[in-house]
Amino acid sequence: MRIIDQRLLPEQLAERELRSLPEVIDAVCSLAVRGAPAIGIAGAMGLVVSLLPHAELSRPDFLERARAYAAAIRATRPTAVNLPWALNRMLARAACAEGDAPAILVALRAEATSILEEDREMCRRIGEHGATLLPDGARVLTHCNAGALATGGIGTALAPIYTAAARGQRVEVLVGETRPLLQGGRLTAWELERAGIPVTVMTDSMVASVMRTGRIDLCIVGADRIAANGDVANKIGTYALAVAARHHEIPFYVAAPTSTFDANTSSGDRIVIEHRAEQEVRGGPFGRVTPPGAAVLNPAFDVTPAALVTSIVSERGVHRPPFDFSAVGMSR
Amino acid sequence: MRIIDQRLLPEQLAERELRSLPEVIDAVCSLAVRGAPAIGIAGAMGLVVSLLPHAELSRPDFLERARAYAAAIRATRPTAVNLPWALNRMLARAACAEGDAPAILVALRAEATSILEEDREMCRRIGEHGATLLPDGARVLTHCNAGALATGGIGTALAPIYTAAARGQRVEVLVGETRPLLQGGRLTAWELERAGIPVTVMTDSMVASVMRTGRIDLCIVGADRIAANGDVANKIGTYALAVAARHHEIPFYVAAPTSTFDANTSSGDRIVIEHRAEQEVRGGPFGRVTPPGAAVLNPAFDVTPAALVTSIVSERGVHRPPFDFSAVGMSR
Repeated sequence: MRIIDQRLLPEQLAERELRSLPEVIDAVCSLAVRGAPAIGIAGAMGLVVSLLPHAELSRPDFLERARAYAAAIRATRPTAVNLPWALNRMLARAACAEGDAPAILVALRAEATSILEEDREMCRRIGEHGATLLPDGARVLTHCNAGALATGGIGTALAPIYTAAARGQRVEVLVGETRPLLQGGRLTAWELERAGIPVTVMTDSMVASVMRTGRIDLCIVGADRIAANGDVANKIGTYALAVAARHHEIPFYVAAPTSTFDANTSSGDRIVIEHRAEQEVRGGPFGRVTPPGAAVLNPAFDVTPAALVTSIVSERGVHRPPFDFSAVGMSR
Repeated sequence: MRIIDQRLLPEQLAERELRSLPEVIDAVCSLAVRGAPAIGIAGAMGLVVSLLPHAELSRPDFLERARAYAAAIRATRPTAVNLPWALNRMLARAACAEGDAPAILVALRAEATSILEEDREMCRRIGEHGATLLPDGARVLTHCNAGALATGGIGTALAPIYTAAARGQRVEVLVGETRPLLQGGRLTAWELERAGIPVTVMTDSMVASVMRTGRIDLCIVGADRIAANGDVANKIGTYALAVAARHHEIPFYVAAPTSTFDANTSSGDRIVIEHRAEQEVRGGPFGRVTPPGAAVLNPAFDVTPAALVTSIVSERGVHRPPFDFSAVGMSR
């Protein structure tokens, strides 16, 4: 299993091979691989990789091992539903597969490949549906990175932009740097630059002020989990942008595959928000920033209530409010 | 003239002596000294320091030199009105002072000292007026640093907090780190930690989400220029906080001495916003962040329209809307 180590971008485009459960877990925890769809795919492939050395186990022992490894991978990051969604698919496939461990491994490899290929196709369709929302010359605000790096295909939030650009539409992207880990300034800027799409980076604190100048036509962000009522968990800072967009009457779209929808979570206040290490916030361009006596918050995600979301774009189309996703997405 | 080099905080508390015009200009441009009231004071004292070697000039030549040096210092930073306010006071005092260059220098030194002492007194009074706005146990959001470091006294936005704490009230401060230069995470956290006041730092993108949890009772920020209609120019990100505060129905206060009021600027859209070097945004915790092909924005300030401001606290009291400062503050 090979990943791009996203921590090194934009300075270095380096691939990394993951060969064991600890390597898979480390890659997901450290954000070497990140983005809700991408960690779903990485979880599925990582399960295969980590089970490869255990083909000699009996069928019951192998299935038991698969469940334990899936639980370990699932525990790395709590917020994105794509990770449990993919691992549940893998465990269901393993349980249904006939034969011994080697045969189950073949089935698991096929399932992981399906998850990747389906994700690529979902991105493509999100791009087609979402592109209908972009007028020619659109100036689109996004947040964090919900692009190719975050998925198996052309991204979620960025898919409509890539699709519109491929059709010859003019499109320009603005993005907040996305503190603390700067996925906007590092990753979104990098992949759009490579694609030849104009991109402007600013600090997250500048976005509302730029909205006020009339320089942003619409917002599209990704999602890590979408509750049944349409509440959206996404990278920290998304909620602030949704509030500012509402104040300025700018459309606020969310783009995500149905693997990100969680029918079993009724509303956003039931979504578990990952809190990451303080050091991500204490560290800054000048080295240590915040003195040790000051407390630090570092929630990695926030919840944007459905009331602030104009539409949600999935591979199935453009969903408009009132949202009801109680029959869509993951079942556990 | 001695300043604390604020660029080195919180890691190092170092004083620096400024002995010449280039040193004064460098200190203000590089933000070694920063904060609207502080750069007013630094401009006044810097004018004295830079004129000291020229006591042998004739009175007309000395006054001409004073005007030229004041213009050079004024040009360093366009947004805060305190700098032209202080320098205009200095030039008026020079013009009124009798005698030759040495006598004018004595008058200028006295005027600069007055500006410092008046600022200290204005901070004290802002603290007293502002403390009436803080309930016991108040959880106060501020932004950037409008504390002791930014003034000649106990600060503007932080003055009510220091005053309330000195009276034995419980008070807690939350602050966004204030990208790009992190004055919140570096300076506000540092000075509140030293004062024994609980402080919590977060990225700017987290604040709206924390407001939504009910953990912030009110906001107090400083100002770099307040237009006659009450529009407030302050550190970039202030506007986003004001929008979020309005959305959550949280009071949004501005604290500033009348030296920050500009009766000659009718509204915020006439305030010149300083744009600083891109590198402040491109640089991040991991070194270079944003790829060279991406554009970068770096306005150092934004304008919050008066309609989003609950009250403005000056040394004269608590000003409530509708604001009319056309008879307050600087005249040019």
